[in-house]
Amino acid sequence: MKKVAIIGLGVIGGSLGMALGATGRYHVIGIDRDPEALRMAAETGAAAEVTGDACTGVRQADVVFLAVPVTAIMEMAEVIKDSLPPRAVVTDVGSTKRLVVETLEKYFSGRFVGGHPMTGSEIRGIRGADQYLFENAVYVLTPDSRTDTQALEMVRAVVEDTGARVLCVSPEEHDLMVAAVSHLPHLLAVSLMNLAAGVAAEHPETLTLAAGGFRDLTRIASSHSSMWRDVYATNRRNIVEVSRRLRSYLKTIEESLLREDFDAVVAEMQRARRERERIPLRTRGLLPAIYEVMVTIPDRPGSIAEVSTAIAAEGLNIVDIEIVRVREGDGGTLRVAFKKSEEADLAQRVLKERGFVARRR
Amino acid sequence: MKKVAIIGLGVIGGSLGMALGATGRYHVIGIDRDPEALRMAAETGAAAEVTGDACTGVRQADVVFLAVPVTAIMEMAEVIKDSLPPRAVVTDVGSTKRLVVETLEKYFSGRFVGGHPMTGSEIRGIRGADQYLFENAVYVLTPDSRTDTQALEMVRAVVEDTGARVLCVSPEEHDLMVAAVSHLPHLLAVSLMNLAAGVAAEHPETLTLAAGGFRDLTRIASSHSSMWRDVYATNRRNIVEVSRRLRSYLKTIEESLLREDFDAVVAEMQRARRERERIPLRTRGLLPAIYEVMVTIPDRPGSIAEVSTAIAAEGLNIVDIEIVRVREGDGGTLRVAFKKSEEADLAQRVLKERGFVARRR
Repeated sequence: MKKVAIIGLGVIGGSLGMALGATGRYHVIGIDRDPEALRMAAETGAAAEVTGDACTGVRQADVVFLAVPVTAIMEMAEVIKDSLPPRAVVTDVGSTKRLVVETLEKYFSGRFVGGHPMTGSEIRGIRGADQYLFENAVYVLTPDSRTDTQALEMVRAVVEDTGARVLCVSPEEHDLMVAAVSHLPHLLAVSLMNLAAGVAAEHPETLTLAAGGFRDLTRIASSHSSMWRDVYATNRRNIVEVSRRLRSYLKTIEESLLREDFDAVVAEMQRARRERERIPLRTRGLLPAIYEVMVTIPDRPGSIAEVSTAIAAEGLNIVDIEIVRVREGDGGTLRVAFKKSEEADLAQRVLKERGFVARRR
Repeated sequence: MKKVAIIGLGVIGGSLGMALGATGRYHVIGIDRDPEALRMAAETGAAAEVTGDACTGVRQADVVFLAVPVTAIMEMAEVIKDSLPPRAVVTDVGSTKRLVVETLEKYFSGRFVGGHPMTGSEIRGIRGADQYLFENAVYVLTPDSRTDTQALEMVRAVVEDTGARVLCVSPEEHDLMVAAVSHLPHLLAVSLMNLAAGVAAEHPETLTLAAGGFRDLTRIASSHSSMWRDVYATNRRNIVEVSRRLRSYLKTIEESLLREDFDAVVAEMQRARRERERIPLRTRGLLPAIYEVMVTIPDRPGSIAEVSTAIAAEGLNIVDIEIVRVREGDGGTLRVAFKKSEEADLAQRVLKERGFVARRR
């Protein structure tokens, strides 16, 4: 049984504990200064033992996860540095890497491996923790020239046991990549929201016009500003770089529009579409092709039960389900997805036999 | 029974027909040049009668919906202009308004009312049509100084019968507002996608890092370029205007970052968060507050059936359901939402009694 100490029992720390504990191969020691987090960690199985004292907690650890905010990482490193067993390996989960790796290599040298799970939860704290948080998620490790190979392999093995898929890149490369795919989207969501609010100041109904899509696009603008402050503070140069590139791109599009060169604009749209198809479909472990049935359901207790029971009676497994629209008191559309086309066909047939309006998508 | 002629039986036209037909108060005449669309319209109840001949189809219409692409609107106006009854009213569903209104008032004067339903479907054509497409959706009408009051009231009444909520603004105002909340988001999604692809060209794993959020944000970049070409062509000045405003805003943020003035950046994030809370939560007819339970479920036939049956047995109505994560062969997290907190509490209790891991969110 490997001993894993997790400092910081928030969403990430809590989920790590749950995932590793569930394998039966890890003894998880949960460490937090909040007694409530310790209690919940013990209760939910996120940790086999808990303590408020980090030095005690890491004393026998094989691997230590620093799952605290980036700004607290240095403080924690200072606290535990003399309490670790000589062969212990340390890793973190911060969303920027270059600064963190630089700092923690001062404390732990090659025994520190930078890490960043590309996943999370809208809920803060251990209430958002989930045993399956890392399933099929990408988990980046950022070894550099100082990193011990053994330390890297140890962290890799533990991370893979949570269900995650490990990707190794340098700390600098990581920071530019996340600036493009994570930080810039956040900046754009904030900018778009504030721009729309500016238009709404002169044209009051603007936000009413914002269909479901706008609200979804700007969802990330509502996330926790303290975490994002750290991100902008530790990755500002890369964020400025990608923001500049974006501005330059927008300017080119504007020029095409002013010239009425719509072909050029369409070419960019088509390029975006092609490129987007290259993003791997990893979420939920679904195969790239999903076979769906759209069912019209009345908005009353029992509708979903009836539909899903009919499907289960055929031995079919629902891989995804979603209410697409609901009219209060009248009904809506339920989207049910299956792994195979034949399964979707059978489900549709069965539901139609029971009087549902059901359509293959 | 009012007679409504719908020219163009795609997603919008088909759904209009279904929604109006379902009220029992409208005789819908479906018109399209594609015999397959006519057949499906008849079969699905999108139209009580169908024809490929627009002149015949509109001959007795009280209201005519031009549900064809913006570029075909002028052509259709030309075709039907001498076949309409004198008191017939004409409306369209195009996503830009100023140019359309200007053009169609030449044909129909004050009997034309510009319209734009702020809704749609990812599926093209009548297969994507849905009786509930307009439920709680905003449907913009754009009367101007030439518009007959009676014509406006006629169209408003019909549109409200689909379940939509009518909003009246001028054509020019509409076009600026949608540039901000609909067209700019599309442009940003395209730009973001192409920028990330550019980074990926030098750093191959970039798109692998793109978590679920990035893929969602750029989803709109994958939609149909022919429709968007029309949008950019007919609303280019407003799109350039909002794009310029966005570039200016980004530049200000960049300058704050270079100065290391993170407080300024955080202030903008907090502003975006406040403003976003002002967007009405209209989709799915849910109340602004949703009360949710997260249930861990095994990935096998019957899980969803068991959960939803247990909930239905208590007389509880599920207002939203979603699989949050699925680990193939092992399980995942189901999110189930209710209208009241007490309902969510009861559902959680009932599920725990049955041995499920269920947590209030």
